[in-house]
Amino acid sequence: MLTRAENETLTRVGPGTPMGNVLRQYWLPAVFSYEVAADGDPLRIRLLGEDLLAFRASDGRVGIVEPLCPHRGAGLFFGRNEECGLRCVYHGWKFDVDGRCIDMPSEPEESSFKDKVRLGAYPTRERNGVVWTYMGPRAEPPELPALEWNLVPPSQLHASKRMQESNWIQALEGGIDPAHAGFLHAPLGRKLDPRILRERYFLNDRHPRFELVDTPYGVRIGTRRNAEPGRYYWSITHYMAPYYNAFAFFDGQEQPSMGSFGWVPMDDVTTMAWCFTWNPARPLSDDEIRETYYLEQIGGGVHVEGDRLLPPTQEPGGAFRPAANRGNDYLIDRRAQRTTRFAGPPGMSAQDAALQESMGAIFDRTREHLGTSDATIIRMRRTLLQAARALAESGTVPAGVDAPETYRVRPAGIVLDASEDWSRAADGWINGKELTAPVLL
Amino acid sequence: MLTRAENETLTRVGPGTPMGNVLRQYWLPAVFSYEVAADGDPLRIRLLGEDLLAFRASDGRVGIVEPLCPHRGAGLFFGRNEECGLRCVYHGWKFDVDGRCIDMPSEPEESSFKDKVRLGAYPTRERNGVVWTYMGPRAEPPELPALEWNLVPPSQLHASKRMQESNWIQALEGGIDPAHAGFLHAPLGRKLDPRILRERYFLNDRHPRFELVDTPYGVRIGTRRNAEPGRYYWSITHYMAPYYNAFAFFDGQEQPSMGSFGWVPMDDVTTMAWCFTWNPARPLSDDEIRETYYLEQIGGGVHVEGDRLLPPTQEPGGAFRPAANRGNDYLIDRRAQRTTRFAGPPGMSAQDAALQESMGAIFDRTREHLGTSDATIIRMRRTLLQAARALAESGTVPAGVDAPETYRVRPAGIVLDASEDWSRAADGWINGKELTAPVLL
Amino acid sequence: MLTRAENETLTRVGPGTPMGNVLRQYWLPAVFSYEVAADGDPLRIRLLGEDLLAFRASDGRVGIVEPLCPHRGAGLFFGRNEECGLRCVYHGWKFDVDGRCIDMPSEPEESSFKDKVRLGAYPTRERNGVVWTYMGPRAEPPELPALEWNLVPPSQLHASKRMQESNWIQALEGGIDPAHAGFLHAPLGRKLDPRILRERYFLNDRHPRFELVDTPYGVRIGTRRNAEPGRYYWSITHYMAPYYNAFAFFDGQEQPSMGSFGWVPMDDVTTMAWCFTWNPARPLSDDEIRETYYLEQIGGGVHVEGDRLLPPTQEPGGAFRPAANRGNDYLIDRRAQRTTRFAGPPGMSAQDAALQESMGAIFDRTREHLGTSDATIIRMRRTLLQAARALAESGTVPAGVDAPETYRVRPAGIVLDASEDWSRAADGWINGKELTAPVLL
Repeated sequence: MLTRAENETLTRVGPGTPMGNVLRQYWLPAVFSYEVAADGDPLRIRLLGEDLLAFRASDGRVGIVEPLCPHRGAGLFFGRNEECGLRCVYHGWKFDVDGRCIDMPSEPEESSFKDKVRLGAYPTRERNGVVWTYMGPRAEPPELPALEWNLVPPSQLHASKRMQESNWIQALEGGIDPAHAGFLHAPLGRKLDPRILRERYFLNDRHPRFELVDTPYGVRIGTRRNAEPGRYYWSITHYMAPYYNAFAFFDGQEQPSMGSFGWVPMDDVTTMAWCFTWNPARPLSDDEIRETYYLEQIGGGVHVEGDRLLPPTQEPGGAFRPAANRGNDYLIDRRAQRTTRFAGPPGMSAQDAALQESMGAIFDRTREHLGTSDATIIRMRRTLLQAARALAESGTVPAGVDAPETYRVRPAGIVLDASEDWSRAADGWINGKELTAPVLL
Repeated sequence: MLTRAENETLTRVGPGTPMGNVLRQYWLPAVFSYEVAADGDPLRIRLLGEDLLAFRASDGRVGIVEPLCPHRGAGLFFGRNEECGLRCVYHGWKFDVDGRCIDMPSEPEESSFKDKVRLGAYPTRERNGVVWTYMGPRAEPPELPALEWNLVPPSQLHASKRMQESNWIQALEGGIDPAHAGFLHAPLGRKLDPRILRERYFLNDRHPRFELVDTPYGVRIGTRRNAEPGRYYWSITHYMAPYYNAFAFFDGQEQPSMGSFGWVPMDDVTTMAWCFTWNPARPLSDDEIRETYYLEQIGGGVHVEGDRLLPPTQEPGGAFRPAANRGNDYLIDRRAQRTTRFAGPPGMSAQDAALQESMGAIFDRTREHLGTSDATIIRMRRTLLQAARALAESGTVPAGVDAPETYRVRPAGIVLDASEDWSRAADGWINGKELTAPVLL
Repeated sequence: MLTRAENETLTRVGPGTPMGNVLRQYWLPAVFSYEVAADGDPLRIRLLGEDLLAFRASDGRVGIVEPLCPHRGAGLFFGRNEECGLRCVYHGWKFDVDGRCIDMPSEPEESSFKDKVRLGAYPTRERNGVVWTYMGPRAEPPELPALEWNLVPPSQLHASKRMQESNWIQALEGGIDPAHAGFLHAPLGRKLDPRILRERYFLNDRHPRFELVDTPYGVRIGTRRNAEPGRYYWSITHYMAPYYNAFAFFDGQEQPSMGSFGWVPMDDVTTMAWCFTWNPARPLSDDEIRETYYLEQIGGGVHVEGDRLLPPTQEPGGAFRPAANRGNDYLIDRRAQRTTRFAGPPGMSAQDAALQESMGAIFDRTREHLGTSDATIIRMRRTLLQAARALAESGTVPAGVDAPETYRVRPAGIVLDASEDWSRAADGWINGKELTAPVLL
């Protein structure tokens, strides 16, 4: 349970808010590279409560800029993206990706007024199909975080995103909560398959125990279930500040693929859920990608794309609204819920969105009752609230900002003797130094 | 005219408001029995500004509970109604109709945490197809009010409900206003039918006089119109606290059927208008029920059902929104308004809704100008405002709560000599002790 | 740049606001005559933040009245417009166009209550197809402004209106801004036509200079572009207080037609843009009217009618919402924007609306950066802000209210020697004393 003040601090992301200041210390995934074509239409986006435009100039550089012309406030969305700049159609003022005014034809030719006018612009970087932006105070931003999905060759990555109509924290809490998968995403009335060890342990032990280890990037999470006598099955996942997770689907593979979400706040009540499936060692197979869509399987439906999205709208992020959404109760299938799966919405992301959005736009955490299974959530909140206080009081840079290399971590699933140390048992794999999962699972 | 403060007190119903406290002393009609099936889908409802879920457990009992799981606030609407309880799909917590947590699989088996957690739940009673709930402070609620429509055999009752987009008070004011029927619901350009006495008196005397008598349940209302020389036609109707009326359509019948509305506040700006037609002595005939839908007749269109409702939505009460509504000007028929009826919307309930919703969500009663025909409205407001004050200041239980038997009253239409006492002339009938209307009308 | 307080004063129009008081000194265009038929349906309108009803009584007089019955607030929209008055269908109270209660059948016949009740009503005048209303304090309103389009024979006028979803000031600023037309409404990639002098000067000199002259009605605006050596091309337009402009399309005609807009505030965030094309000397030709719709031409698409409007709704002004609107990015045509015109939306009014609405409902003028081309806007704001202050402090009547004859002004386009005085060079034409444009252009 949080106090009302803590809940406010934790959830609000706008300019000048304590948590908004924390989030502005990190690079943010802003748009996919494919969303902005050179000299193409400007794209409306929203990040941390700020409405912005993204556009790619003739030279390929991506600008992320304020949406209104500094002259008299006309919308640059209606502007002309031409010859290395975005030109307002009201009076022809033109700006480059850095926000400099490079033409002002409505003023006398001898005027120096255009040197005094700037359009707000944030630095961008582009890597592996993602355009990142830095909305923070440093003149020289830090390095991009070395998240493995952002570094593998394109054939080893499958990425998508979807809009969620809730505050980012309740999305993140769901994402790093190791206890919910065995319920919310569980199949129903299906025989155990002895070849799928993970599933057997999941269904066998519904009362897992949790252990947490603080790290430079956030928290390493160990979920312990009983395996064979004298042995434990450990699921190792991660919370990477400020809003990433890393999780596993693999089972008995030597070169397994993995998943990661990033819940980037669009504003206080809307979140862009970025989803990445990647393999450090080999290209993703078609079957593998297809399985992420197979809704009846545990973990199926993490990606939401194509037919599973609504037709694009002109709103920021409007191309990424799920067809299963609040307006239709997430296409809940009550018959399926009685027969084949624990929850009614089709697929993992729809299930997560249903539950997380049902809490209200910003959940009132003065009303919750946390149990032992919520240790991860409690740790994450404490980390973020302490970061907000430390930044406000002494300018302390939040965890991970200046340790970008530590983000190169992977999830793991290992069976260990009861006496073994789970947090060190697979370090070579987890830290990305090995390409083969060390323990059969 | 009310002061702004009085208007606020009169209209606001949320938790902790003075009038909300008054209304919580009474049982409320919550849902029809048919809306909740055993082990069926949970149903979203809203009562007195509180969002709730209704569900019927395997054993047939109906629960009316808070909609969010006390764990981390996930919506129980997405839950599983199974084996005598509603189970949250986030982490499997399960609650019975009384709000007790009866399973908590995400915690260690030895944990006693589940005994410390409760889901808010209100007591329910079920009678004659209506599920009632008590949202008040008493550990032992009072008896259900002995409204006759809730006690007759099912064949003698026809019931429906519709949502109204306005505060409950302006709906109630319309319902107990004996002056408006001769205008708003009047036919136009039609010859008087000498066989219909009521209609003859209605059209003959457009300036009725009103007399009120306070009763244990509210107010008995006498509307006097001139009949034959030396005689009066009295329409006797009732205001039963806090939001019921009782009214007559009958004409010259010995075993007439009657009507009653209950305007139950969903919140400050939305009201569920429950409508009941009943006969104390005999089953309702098909013709009789059909007539309540015959829109050109006085009083036709009180019930709004079937085709006259919009397709259900997921919102609380969303199955009961009229097809004739604010968004389409209540399907007003201007041609009919010029030729066959005084008002344009089709049917009595559409006419009432049009006028009452047109006042705005909560009418500003500092701007009104009340005349002598508004005596009933003035009396009702005074009764409610006094009840709010008395409850707040000295804990006085409002009228009728502990006199449930006095709600067994019927409307009447009688022709009396000018010297007779209208309020006592038909007591046997009005109080439900006789099954034959005592005076021919 | 304005201070936040100045911006509030400038933009807010509701009852009791400083600018609302200024605007209430002037007659306002309220509805077209054709919108209200004798004994026809009442029409919902909104003016200066007030919801009102317009109706034409049996005798042809137009009433503009409060929308709610003074009795208990029922909507008179549902009333009966019959026999020289509007009758409420709730209890039959009836009001004439002046707001007098002329029948009150729900009260005893001997009652004098109806003499004490009034419905708020504003005086109206009707001229040349426009119903004007006066919402100000004078018992005897001033004369209607002698705007020429309101005085010519009907065959010499073409009029329309459209709703704009923004504050009136940003619409007005666009309308009197002589600098934007060469950008926002400019064609693209088209050869200059030497026969069109105006176009040649426009495209030749993208850095015009501006001169302003204060007048009794507002501001006379001279826009100077280089013509042949030693000569200037002057475009003369007008700002007429509080919200009119006058502008020219003509080129080389002796009896040219002209245009005028009036941006009448419906409320703080919605504006009715009235548009007039007129000719002082001769009927408008069909070709001429058609050209105002020809979207590729400079100035094409000023009128928005017929297929270019959405189906009517029941909201105030709901018959005048453009099909090209905020919800569809004004049907922007990005291909056309790359090839044939500077801006994407189809037609001048759609282009104006796109830019003006993109600034937000009420633009925050603390964020703007004005240049020399914004002199007209600065002058208009100063005029209005001074008028608000002078009215509030000393009751000074704003400019033009008592000089209605000075509104008879026309735009002009003239080529003069550099030494000539532009503001006097065409006075006979501009002031409406001559019917032939004095200078070839």
